Amino acid sequence: MKILIPNTIELALTADVESVVYDIDEPIPAEHRDAEVLVAWHNSASWLQEAARALPDLRLVQALASGADVVLGAGFGDDVRICSGRSLHDGPVAEHALALILSAVRRLDRLRDAQRDHRWDEEFIDEQSAPGTRAQHTLAGAAVTIWGFGSIAATLAPLLTALGAEVQGIARTAGERSGFPVHADADAAAILADTDVLVSILPATDNTADLFDATVFGALKPGAAFVNVGRGATVDERALVDALESGQLRAAAVDVMKSEPLPASDPLWDAPNLLITPHIAGNRPVGAARLVDDNVRRLLAGEPLLNQVRP
Amino acid sequence: MKILIPNTIELALTADVESVVYDIDEPIPAEHRDAEVLVAWHNSASWLQEAARALPDLRLVQALASGADVVLGAGFGDDVRICSGRSLHDGPVAEHALALILSAVRRLDRLRDAQRDHRWDEEFIDEQSAPGTRAQHTLAGAAVTIWGFGSIAATLAPLLTALGAEVQGIARTAGERSGFPVHADADAAAILADTDVLVSILPATDNTADLFDATVFGALKPGAAFVNVGRGATVDERALVDALESGQLRAAAVDVMKSEPLPASDPLWDAPNLLITPHIAGNRPVGAARLVDDNVRRLLAGEPLLNQVRP
Repeated sequence: MKILIPNTIELALTADVESVVYDIDEPIPAEHRDAEVLVAWHNSASWLQEAARALPDLRLVQALASGADVVLGAGFGDDVRICSGRSLHDGPVAEHALALILSAVRRLDRLRDAQRDHRWDEEFIDEQSAPGTRAQHTLAGAAVTIWGFGSIAATLAPLLTALGAEVQGIARTAGERSGFPVHADADAAAILADTDVLVSILPATDNTADLFDATVFGALKPGAAFVNVGRGATVDERALVDALESGQLRAAAVDVMKSEPLPASDPLWDAPNLLITPHIAGNRPVGAARLVDDNVRRLLAGEPLLNQVRP
Repeated sequence: MKILIPNTIELALTADVESVVYDIDEPIPAEHRDAEVLVAWHNSASWLQEAARALPDLRLVQALASGADVVLGAGFGDDVRICSGRSLHDGPVAEHALALILSAVRRLDRLRDAQRDHRWDEEFIDEQSAPGTRAQHTLAGAAVTIWGFGSIAATLAPLLTALGAEVQGIARTAGERSGFPVHADADAAAILADTDVLVSILPATDNTADLFDATVFGALKPGAAFVNVGRGATVDERALVDALESGQLRAAAVDVMKSEPLPASDPLWDAPNLLITPHIAGNRPVGAARLVDDNVRRLLAGEPLLNQVRP
């Protein structure tokens, strides 16, 4: 069995297959059009559409992205199975979320700005150690609420707990998940009133559009921080800027925006006390070789595949 | 027993004592000069010298700083016991170290600069996901070496492990500490050659002066990151700037410098890929009330005190 591996990632496979590395910016060489498995990572939509026509023996497209949307829309035949890289991004996204949370709490954005001005930020030093501001400057004892409590939250929450935070979740249904209390979104207001750091890991759906609006930011404990590693569509960005300007939010950090790449004219760039990163949380799948190996073996053995999204 | 609590911290004590809050910028009121315990936090040297003269009944000075140097030099009588706040800073310093490590690995400094230019950093996005650069952009699978393996390292190391890093230490003597392998500093070169992130938590001593020099930075794996939450005296800062300019160090983050506050003219401010924070890692003791309570009870009971540094 021949498997096509993109040149955008290194995969040390152990499955008994013939691996061929291809260039995602070039047509698939004629001698490799007998491939039965295609691994996709950072491929363009047009390249995938061409691949759908050029690979008659294809049985499986293994996307490494969390969502397989682009692959699903490329026109692969109905007999071609499509699997996503969903599970590969839990660790990376949780790591980036933690980086953004710590940056917001420890105010690395503000201190970087002071550095550029060659300024030792005495005002921040006094603020950080002032009585009554503890939960704003450390995770030790801080109340962290994660809205959207799936596998990424299950990875992130124990890290926050290890740093001394008290972690709870908000999701569609209440209950305990991975040992953490999760409340129904209908009860959000009461939770938010006692939240020092609000973290969003929500996907973009009809229900989550503009969910983080003036009402939600206003319901938070004054001076709380907000971090978004979910999707930009969930945030009313005008309300976010307002909450930062009024000081209702002390700091925020977002990896995702409504419009990406964020246009140079967007007011978000200059919002006070906001750190923006360019959608890089999950830009590096972890465990991809193991997933590909596993799915190839399952394909050969006729077993159910992991992360299968079609048919 | 009367205990004087500074206005620079909130302490909810449970010990059976009379707590009086004092202003660290004002003389001690005459009616409170019968205090037997003085808690010190952010007091100036001159204030402490005055207190040494003004408090004839004093039995204990409980400093909340990690080192009690300023208190020790203030001239308190030989019968006054002095205790440090050593253990109160393990958590805060470990948290800040983790923030700086994640900032260096996820390049929050660079991305903040891009944000100020309203620039979506496509070059970084490509670099982050490029094959062969994995250990530079995530802690998952990265080799992290902590030089100086005391109680702060013991707090930090499990956090790094939880993020997927392989952690080892360097200290004066080899052995296993808190479950992590620690190598003797004589063997440092071999460890550094395989290190992705080097973290210093070394104190300033005659042995550690300028320890992090061109030889150490040159011994690191090319493209490694360096983080310092120990003391600035341990770093040859010219060598640090050189290693950053040459690219031998891909990124660095330091909370401590040789000269603090760092003078506006210092070349460190503008070193490429360096994040500077103004010595704020341990600016907030955690667990201070418990330590004070504990030491007051021990004092009343005639038991040995915690963190006693004199006599």
